[in-house]
Amino acid sequence: MPRYALKIEYDGAPFAGWQRQNDLATAQGAVEAALAKLEADVPTIAAAGRTDAGVHALGQVAHCDMVKDWDPFRLSEALNYHLKPDPISILTAARVDDEFHARFSALERQYLFRLISRRAPVTHDRGNVWQVQHPLELEPMQAAAKHLIGLHDFTTFRASMCQAASPVKSVDEVRIEAFDIPHGREFRFHVRARSFLHNQVRSFVGTLERVGAGAWEPDDVKTALEAQDRAACGPVCPPQGLYLANVVYPEDPFA
Amino acid sequence: MPRYALKIEYDGAPFAGWQRQNDLATAQGAVEAALAKLEADVPTIAAAGRTDAGVHALGQVAHCDMVKDWDPFRLSEALNYHLKPDPISILTAARVDDEFHARFSALERQYLFRLISRRAPVTHDRGNVWQVQHPLELEPMQAAAKHLIGLHDFTTFRASMCQAASPVKSVDEVRIEAFDIPHGREFRFHVRARSFLHNQVRSFVGTLERVGAGAWEPDDVKTALEAQDRAACGPVCPPQGLYLANVVYPEDPFA
Repeated sequence: MPRYALKIEYDGAPFAGWQRQNDLATAQGAVEAALAKLEADVPTIAAAGRTDAGVHALGQVAHCDMVKDWDPFRLSEALNYHLKPDPISILTAARVDDEFHARFSALERQYLFRLISRRAPVTHDRGNVWQVQHPLELEPMQAAAKHLIGLHDFTTFRASMCQAASPVKSVDEVRIEAFDIPHGREFRFHVRARSFLHNQVRSFVGTLERVGAGAWEPDDVKTALEAQDRAACGPVCPPQGLYLANVVYPEDPFA
Repeated sequence: MPRYALKIEYDGAPFAGWQRQNDLATAQGAVEAALAKLEADVPTIAAAGRTDAGVHALGQVAHCDMVKDWDPFRLSEALNYHLKPDPISILTAARVDDEFHARFSALERQYLFRLISRRAPVTHDRGNVWQVQHPLELEPMQAAAKHLIGLHDFTTFRASMCQAASPVKSVDEVRIEAFDIPHGREFRFHVRARSFLHNQVRSFVGTLERVGAGAWEPDDVKTALEAQDRAACGPVCPPQGLYLANVVYPEDPFA
């Protein structure tokens, strides 16, 4: 059966996350339902990241095996037709080797988190950002973020329900940029790792926000990390600012 | 009574436009309802631009007369409290002279139109942009836009229901910028004039899009303008890409 990689964008708001669940709208369920309109027995699809409820994707990657030999462009067009009107679309599709696995072949996941600091409630970006109404300082957040880069036991920043075999992960980047928006400021967190623990990015951002607000010192993040204790984590921030931005493979299947 | 200017941002989707209507949610109705929570007899408010149903605002300006001498920041905070959960917020408020009139004192209205050309349906920006699925060329649109700048009879680009006394208006700017977005391209139209005819910006953009798509030549826009005939206009584009971006006064009331 020919295998295809799909690059998928979705608004997380209407979905109970990526992973298929009975009686709940999910991104995986939406794509599988669209595939079922094209061929009778499309097997379950696999994706690079199992995003939580409300979390968005700019570049989720999944793979599927088809019976028919589809032209990749026509496959993406047919899927987008059947995905309407849900806010999920196939950005591009590509024919890949049978060895390609969207989850197991991935070398790196890249997440973006959008945090807006503004007094007036956001309107156009509602559901696409996490908003706080107090000012935030960039430099202390950047100093604190340095402690989170590298190979560590991230038990502190791991949801209690996390199913990963080990809390030890290597974080390649936690980069924060800031820019002015009308009457406020936006902070973008770019976080990269081969793989993540459950809620790890939201635990990072929720904790770093406390540093930006002045409630924590940058070194308190180091202390929290070294505690290897979930209770030492700052508040986990809400999902609507989080985006699975990109997935890196040994060879870009969409190049 | 002390007069206040309000700078207002809203998502146009849930509103039947700015102007108050019986039994319909409108932006003016939302602000007046919030004002009525603060003082018993707040007079009708006036705004710089009467945006249509679905049209957004980044910087609508309205003024209101209050009985109490409000601190402007506390006024905006109180209004934002009562505006929840509607996607409309007061960005800032300022005390102004009794001579200030949000509509009649305005020297210029600035509109932004966001047009996305991308094959895959938009997800996160749905409702915030107009999407077409074919490619568009920037340069022909820019060449065509030049014909729309200056003092002209804009009968061609005026809705039949327009109530303006004259179809003659002076357009200060029609600037188009383009940038790549993942798997597509975004075009931003910046249009400035002292005042506009009804549907003028959407008539401009709908016509310029035809030029970008190659269906019209740039000079066809000149011919259409000179026809002074509504039937010569291109299709009027949908409202969800249009934003009242800014209003200019002799002195910035919010400076």
